[in-house]
Amino acid sequence: MAAPVLRPPSTPAGADLPATLRSVLRPDQVLTDPDVTRGYARDMVPTAPSGLPLAVVFPESTADVVAVVRRCAAAGVPIVPRGAGSGLTGAANAVDGAVSLVMTRMNRILEIDEGNRLAVVQPGVVNRALRTAVEARGLFYAPDPSSYDWCTVGGNLSTNAGGLCCVKYGVTTDAVLGLEVVLASGEVLRTGRRTVKGVAGYDLTRLLVGSEGTLAVITEATVQLRPLPAAPCTLVAAFDSAEAAGAAVSGAIRAGLVPSLLEIMDATSIRAVERHTGVELLGPGADTPAALLLGQSDAGGAVGLSEMERLEQVCQDSGATFSYVTADLAEGRMLLQARRDVLTALETVGTWLTDDVCVPRTRIAELIADCERIAAREGVTIAVVGHAGDGNMHPTVVYDAADAEQAAAAERAFGAMLDAGRALGGTVTGEHGVGRIKQPYLAAEIGPVGLAVHRAVKRALDPDGLFNPGSMFSLVD
Amino acid sequence: MAAPVLRPPSTPAGADLPATLRSVLRPDQVLTDPDVTRGYARDMVPTAPSGLPLAVVFPESTADVVAVVRRCAAAGVPIVPRGAGSGLTGAANAVDGAVSLVMTRMNRILEIDEGNRLAVVQPGVVNRALRTAVEARGLFYAPDPSSYDWCTVGGNLSTNAGGLCCVKYGVTTDAVLGLEVVLASGEVLRTGRRTVKGVAGYDLTRLLVGSEGTLAVITEATVQLRPLPAAPCTLVAAFDSAEAAGAAVSGAIRAGLVPSLLEIMDATSIRAVERHTGVELLGPGADTPAALLLGQSDAGGAVGLSEMERLEQVCQDSGATFSYVTADLAEGRMLLQARRDVLTALETVGTWLTDDVCVPRTRIAELIADCERIAAREGVTIAVVGHAGDGNMHPTVVYDAADAEQAAAAERAFGAMLDAGRALGGTVTGEHGVGRIKQPYLAAEIGPVGLAVHRAVKRALDPDGLFNPGSMFSLVD
Repeated sequence: MAAPVLRPPSTPAGADLPATLRSVLRPDQVLTDPDVTRGYARDMVPTAPSGLPLAVVFPESTADVVAVVRRCAAAGVPIVPRGAGSGLTGAANAVDGAVSLVMTRMNRILEIDEGNRLAVVQPGVVNRALRTAVEARGLFYAPDPSSYDWCTVGGNLSTNAGGLCCVKYGVTTDAVLGLEVVLASGEVLRTGRRTVKGVAGYDLTRLLVGSEGTLAVITEATVQLRPLPAAPCTLVAAFDSAEAAGAAVSGAIRAGLVPSLLEIMDATSIRAVERHTGVELLGPGADTPAALLLGQSDAGGAVGLSEMERLEQVCQDSGATFSYVTADLAEGRMLLQARRDVLTALETVGTWLTDDVCVPRTRIAELIADCERIAAREGVTIAVVGHAGDGNMHPTVVYDAADAEQAAAAERAFGAMLDAGRALGGTVTGEHGVGRIKQPYLAAEIGPVGLAVHRAVKRALDPDGLFNPGSMFSLVD
Repeated sequence: MAAPVLRPPSTPAGADLPATLRSVLRPDQVLTDPDVTRGYARDMVPTAPSGLPLAVVFPESTADVVAVVRRCAAAGVPIVPRGAGSGLTGAANAVDGAVSLVMTRMNRILEIDEGNRLAVVQPGVVNRALRTAVEARGLFYAPDPSSYDWCTVGGNLSTNAGGLCCVKYGVTTDAVLGLEVVLASGEVLRTGRRTVKGVAGYDLTRLLVGSEGTLAVITEATVQLRPLPAAPCTLVAAFDSAEAAGAAVSGAIRAGLVPSLLEIMDATSIRAVERHTGVELLGPGADTPAALLLGQSDAGGAVGLSEMERLEQVCQDSGATFSYVTADLAEGRMLLQARRDVLTALETVGTWLTDDVCVPRTRIAELIADCERIAAREGVTIAVVGHAGDGNMHPTVVYDAADAEQAAAAERAFGAMLDAGRALGGTVTGEHGVGRIKQPYLAAEIGPVGLAVHRAVKRALDPDGLFNPGSMFSLVD
């Protein structure tokens, strides 16, 4: 399927803007060669529209961002902020004639304050780099999107990214204390604080987190750190139906368990990983189960072991056909790696289009059943993996992108799964965001009053539509 | 000191509004007798301005709120939403000629969903009533402001209230999944979701939480529940200087401890409680220490005990002159009660004016020293109590309100402590909010750009200034 091409709301008269920006910044911070700029046009989702930017600009300081914003505003040229491009909704995709503002050179960790358990970082810091740096001080930065090896903290903030940690530690917004952003006016706004508590004024920090680059450009963040968790204890449990696995998740919630992660893989995911890695997850010759649950506790020692044993009991009570608890780190890592390998494994089968739907935790099995029905109806493969502990499922369509009929079926399946999630009391995005592929689904979820409020907030902060035009929601019906 | 009287921005021509509201609602939902309405004019802070409302209105449903908002908007009569009146900033204080919208009759718990650990409540539910109801199902609603016996969840949401639990469980916003609110247009907006994760659109939920009734009227909330914590294990430690106690708090943070509460009381607070209750906290004949730390762990059993023993070790390493750990529930309750009795005890000495300043946790001792200097300079008594674990201090001025000079000194001391907190990298409100007493301090903290963004957001959602006029910040310089 050819991705549609975006046009900015008004074609800018910014032909001389790149020259201006080169003189204000340095020439190597402003790229215009289409062969180069095309490399910054898209994120990881295959179906989102994208355009060709007028220029790709690499600010190195807040002052650089201010300069670019002021020049672009004056020239009427929109700005699409962008991190590493690991997004899954096209929220950072380029727009024809716009400036793509790539934040990856602002990649310094400015401060790690152990006494107050916080860090101050620039937006281009790679998630893993921050994790590693604070770990060396005995601290923990919780948000762990699957792309943490290469995604940036700024991108995580813009999309309010999640990860495996969320069942215990929440999403990115739960780790943010304050921000520095550049507004459409070119003014620098500082929000939030360095203290762990604070209610002075509106919570602009959390309004900006997850706003997907539509309200401001994030230039600095103060993030909260936690004590480094203990070495994990891991559980794996197999089930002969998704219903049984879903019942185990509900049982765990009712039992008051708070694992540090609780993941689910369906048979399609398991088979893909087993084929890809050549390793049979439950041992040589074992039948592929209908569903696997992977749980971890980071409570440490006997407590962690006891938490996983209680989870194992819940799984057995829900009809697990196999279960195993291990405090062995290598075994735990191997099991988790299988979960993390799902998308890579699916990639060897075809093009994947991963969905992101979050349902109340009691309704996971129903969502999986809906996905099976949708796969059968549309004649596509759907592998269901997800963060079972918080109900955030990533059913992933695998298809042949060169086959127009299959591509269309994949897109229909993608939408049908979102509708199914909403019908179960869920939301159309648990952690990936809206971007350029879920606008009608967002509009359906928030309704006309919600959409009107979104537009009013957007107009209040960015009256001329400078930032990320056409993404998340449109300003007019 | 006589509290100043507020006037609404424009004197409304709403003389016949009460009659209209009586016909739209029921007559007993609309009170206008000044002897009655005066009882709804103020919250708990003595120094905030308040006026006499045109009417005090008691909605019993979202439809009632819509009707009142529409009629008030048409008549140009502002609305001040209000819960139980336990606030400490005057944010719910009446304005001359406005409608005070008292939400206490909308006090039903609509749903408790154990499988998804959430509750749906109306805003007038008393915090304690929600706690008790969910506790009966083995669940826990974390936010626990000191007034939890009588404050409402709606008031807690409006002020983003904290409590003792925050060091481990965060403030009210961290427990909210979604809201139903009535906008100034009279439209009903639903924000958020029932799922534990979700990033569909701007985080309007958290924009509204803590907006102190200036953006919308909250008519329903979906709140997240936690597993019921285990019975607490309690530590008390005494220090002969605030510096030593502060060092113990920093030491606990560095040691990676996350107690379920960690409170501090200075000598003035301790003496007030001892005089009031007739109980010597450290036993008969013991010297009053310069500072006490009270810690609890709700991790349960041996783990909780071990957490408090580690905290005890940190206290001893920081020079504690006395320490004691107990798993005895009655002892723990008695110690906590001493902390909760501070304001009551101070009330027997004079009028209290409690401040709310949050500093980085490494700077607590410096703030206490600043408070001592301010007390000496202004010739007033300042008792320091607070949530040491999150740096949120409540230095409380005790004075003779009938003495104009003392009252003026108390107000000067109140402001000086806020300035001191900000100078230490803190914020002017950790959990009480801004209301009608901290507007200049909010403006100083967020700066001109922050104030301009607040005004833009306010105008976007409430263009005619219908809700809570003159509170939090002014719309013009």
